[in-house]
Amino acid sequence: MSYQAPIKDMLFVLNELAGLEDIAALPGFEDAQPETVQAVIEESARFNQEVVAPLNVTGDREPSSWRDGAVTTTPGFAAAFRQFVEGGWQGVPHAVDLGGQGLPKVVATPCIEMLNAANLSFALCPLLTDGAIEALMTAGSDTQKALYVPRLISGEWTGTMNLTEPQAGSDLALVRTRAEPQGDGSYKVFGTKIFITYGEHDMAENIVHLVLARTPGAPEGVKGISLFIVPKFLVHEDGSLGARNDVQCVSIEHKLGIKASPTAVLQYGDHGGATGYLIGEENRGLEYMFIMMNSARFAVGVQGIGVADRAYQHAVAYAKERVQSRPVDGSAKQAVAIIHHPDVKRMLSTMRAYTEASRALAYVAASHADRAHASADAAERAQHNAIYEYLVPIHKGWSTEMSIEVASLGVQIHGGMGFIEETGAAQYYRDARILTIYEGTTAIQANDLVGRKTVRDGGAIAKGVLAAVAETERALAARAEAADAGPVFETMRKHLAAGRQGLADVVDFVVAHAKSDPNAVFAGSVPYLKLSGIVLGGWVMARAMLAADAKRAEDPVFHATKIATASFYASHILSQAPGIAASIVETVGGDAWLAQDVEAY
Amino acid sequence: MSYQAPIKDMLFVLNELAGLEDIAALPGFEDAQPETVQAVIEESARFNQEVVAPLNVTGDREPSSWRDGAVTTTPGFAAAFRQFVEGGWQGVPHAVDLGGQGLPKVVATPCIEMLNAANLSFALCPLLTDGAIEALMTAGSDTQKALYVPRLISGEWTGTMNLTEPQAGSDLALVRTRAEPQGDGSYKVFGTKIFITYGEHDMAENIVHLVLARTPGAPEGVKGISLFIVPKFLVHEDGSLGARNDVQCVSIEHKLGIKASPTAVLQYGDHGGATGYLIGEENRGLEYMFIMMNSARFAVGVQGIGVADRAYQHAVAYAKERVQSRPVDGSAKQAVAIIHHPDVKRMLSTMRAYTEASRALAYVAASHADRAHASADAAERAQHNAIYEYLVPIHKGWSTEMSIEVASLGVQIHGGMGFIEETGAAQYYRDARILTIYEGTTAIQANDLVGRKTVRDGGAIAKGVLAAVAETERALAARAEAADAGPVFETMRKHLAAGRQGLADVVDFVVAHAKSDPNAVFAGSVPYLKLSGIVLGGWVMARAMLAADAKRAEDPVFHATKIATASFYASHILSQAPGIAASIVETVGGDAWLAQDVEAY
Repeated sequence: MSYQAPIKDMLFVLNELAGLEDIAALPGFEDAQPETVQAVIEESARFNQEVVAPLNVTGDREPSSWRDGAVTTTPGFAAAFRQFVEGGWQGVPHAVDLGGQGLPKVVATPCIEMLNAANLSFALCPLLTDGAIEALMTAGSDTQKALYVPRLISGEWTGTMNLTEPQAGSDLALVRTRAEPQGDGSYKVFGTKIFITYGEHDMAENIVHLVLARTPGAPEGVKGISLFIVPKFLVHEDGSLGARNDVQCVSIEHKLGIKASPTAVLQYGDHGGATGYLIGEENRGLEYMFIMMNSARFAVGVQGIGVADRAYQHAVAYAKERVQSRPVDGSAKQAVAIIHHPDVKRMLSTMRAYTEASRALAYVAASHADRAHASADAAERAQHNAIYEYLVPIHKGWSTEMSIEVASLGVQIHGGMGFIEETGAAQYYRDARILTIYEGTTAIQANDLVGRKTVRDGGAIAKGVLAAVAETERALAARAEAADAGPVFETMRKHLAAGRQGLADVVDFVVAHAKSDPNAVFAGSVPYLKLSGIVLGGWVMARAMLAADAKRAEDPVFHATKIATASFYASHILSQAPGIAASIVETVGGDAWLAQDVEAY
Repeated sequence: MSYQAPIKDMLFVLNELAGLEDIAALPGFEDAQPETVQAVIEESARFNQEVVAPLNVTGDREPSSWRDGAVTTTPGFAAAFRQFVEGGWQGVPHAVDLGGQGLPKVVATPCIEMLNAANLSFALCPLLTDGAIEALMTAGSDTQKALYVPRLISGEWTGTMNLTEPQAGSDLALVRTRAEPQGDGSYKVFGTKIFITYGEHDMAENIVHLVLARTPGAPEGVKGISLFIVPKFLVHEDGSLGARNDVQCVSIEHKLGIKASPTAVLQYGDHGGATGYLIGEENRGLEYMFIMMNSARFAVGVQGIGVADRAYQHAVAYAKERVQSRPVDGSAKQAVAIIHHPDVKRMLSTMRAYTEASRALAYVAASHADRAHASADAAERAQHNAIYEYLVPIHKGWSTEMSIEVASLGVQIHGGMGFIEETGAAQYYRDARILTIYEGTTAIQANDLVGRKTVRDGGAIAKGVLAAVAETERALAARAEAADAGPVFETMRKHLAAGRQGLADVVDFVVAHAKSDPNAVFAGSVPYLKLSGIVLGGWVMARAMLAADAKRAEDPVFHATKIATASFYASHILSQAPGIAASIVETVGGDAWLAQDVEAY
């Protein structure tokens, strides 16, 4: 199944919802003029459609394999990665003086989406490298930056993120890997790390592992973790490669999906200790790793959008081809393509509405990151940063949860053929399943949303976002009054208002009860996250509806379709918000199910 | 992961909700006394836990394989099937005079659930045989019954169901397989059938294929299809096996899940024609096949319950073992088993609530089938039959849709380990995915629910069931008034009333608009089905809550747990009903999304 990048929708969201023009006016982003951005996106589309997308099925059928410590990636991956490097695609959002293109995150995001839609497994390697670059740029020394970052930005080397150990998954307090200072500024690292994405592979000449470990005498828990650079090959001062470091890939996992992406078990220090270099200060490792993790979390949310869109395109193509049954309205005497059947339309519209809403929310979030980075005013920067940080767990959690549902609908549309592996729909269903788990499960995102992003500021940022939603409601109400409006604006306004009210109630509930009844609040944390995604997704779709309405004359089919999709979103997805809100605020004071002893399970 | 049959819950549902005592009082069901039923269920549990369940993982890792027309099933399957036959398990619900045990469907249903929880792939073989038995008992000649049925009931031979062809899946009007009369009462059958479950295997000495085909000059469409017996080996009058028939298994499918179950492509008549025997009258094949299909549809719904329960048990075991993070309420200073975390409890409770509600609804439906079969009064039989027929598509569609969600939650609870195939959680996620597709997709069930089961009688049966729901609300209200009641009864009553009202509105909408706006009604058909499942699942959980409350003293932990689960169901699942209802009734009069041209997709 070929992939067609949704360039029109991407540009619509960038221009109409994410304020690309304003961002291009910020210092440092002068290159992000509309024509340049369109050219970058079109070129990225071409590369991903032609080079990366065809390898998606190959990766599923011929996964990466391990032998004697070495990993051989899927045939074609290494060559495609060379083209990726040559095209400069790793550098899109990174510093110009270190070899990047210096484009804003809001422009890098569609490129990342296309890469992931083309091939989730392939895209994971650059995704982790991006995180390593951000961590080093923030916390690395000048020497470290100069030595590692340009080669990561070029893509010559790739990065990894080593957090998890067999006993330490979501709970990093349990990390045991240790790092012993050698007196020369370096450390010897010993321990086992698991689930290391692209922890070993044959696509680049070196791999820069960022590794969480404890130094001797470090405090217990997360306050005693430091972050180290442990390169696969040691690096001379001039950047040339030295000896092989004492880190070995002892196996890779046999997984449900993303089979081409090697998930490594890495053994550090079995032969005297792996040489590592401290990043920043001791015991601040988790803080630094969070930079990497936040970058990766945002990107994993984008993975959800990418795989959802790919599954949608696959299902549409099948639904237009497969002829089965006469139409229920008697409009034809013969069997018709199944896309004419209302339930198939409903499923396709659900897939598309989720995908477009989460895309719009992601790009809007990215635009806040860019404003947080480049706005002139410090208070403005702080405000945009807070909004971005509020949106990250919502985007990551919601976009990935919806991607599983969307991929599952994609299988369903194929009927029996969907269950046959050769059809290809099942791969998205398998691949998507990791997205709600890695880089922090949905529950971890929801804990972040509740604790750091809602309770800490008493719900101030959340309420600020909800005020913006209310503004959109007023715009809908104004538009609904016009004689030519039809029912769509009022339908959207009604559901958006009900959803916003429900979400506001939940924010109040979370703030009020987090201390007094933490079990009740955290039992509702994932529903709170999903509710936020549904309501804020509704908000951006409402804005899209208004913008498409204003531009209707320009490209009638595209804009009418956008309005139809937004209208579907309102009636079929946003309409679920009040029920979810009710279920959250009802959980209080030792609910029977929450209070009961775990032995009863 | 071992399987523990939920015997206590099964007996609770049979006795408290499905009226086992009343059914045992009906003529022909005298053997279904409580002690006998308990003994049957316990023995079935033992067999499935010890013999069938351990083969589940084996089947996934060593699927059935094809070579030169022959299928070799997973190692251990044939031997286990011999034990299944020896135990007489195929015969549980079938006629005593033909070798069965003559137990009511309400007793056979838990046995089928356990077989499926133990091993979906294995259970499919008997599932199809059951359908063949029912079709032959209803439409076969006396000679055919005498020749085939006893050997199917014993399990010596197995049955299959041959509907699908490459161009004819959901739409059987497109069937092309043809049958030519030979003048001696037999036919020669020619054609290709696909997706034939256990269409070829090595577990029984003969396979009785029931095949849809067209005779010469038959009308077009579904009114020109006849049903034929085409045995793999021809059968002499004394029941001994004759020559190999001209039906060949040319390949089996490479599937996402249920890999041990061979899904065959069968080629009929490549060497002169496969000998077939007409069942009943010509051109009434679809009607007869529907007997088989209804039996299989009910059983597939039960498959959903089985795999959901297995996934739940797997997740609970992991959640009790896996230690990660401190409790959010500060009740411990150390990391605890993750089952103590509120979000893990929420996920487990969701899994359990769905499973128990769909189990209760299934057994209640089965009890109506038994009353339809054996009640003394003809009007009563007709009434119970209509209720059963109304519940079948709801049960099939809802139990299977929920099983995918439950299996997905099971993966999520395992975190990263859930994505590793060796853990086993992923198998349920893959296996369950077929259940909403085969024996009629959820959309096909929903069409049945709308057309034959709601519109045809003007919503009379649906309204009758809703009147019973209202009765339960009154009982909840009465119980809620007592001083010792606590909030659970009123919470349940409130959500049940809102759900019932929403469902009633939808039934009115469906009846009112099916003719005038079929596209709108059928666009809401799957949501209508899911809404029905959620509300009727809530109804049986409400009844369970009241029954458990009345019996609280007898087994306090079990009954308190049941009340807690019902309470969770009310707040977290039933609470979604009004939003779904709203989304259905809002789709009217050429909604933008529904009206738009398919080229816009």
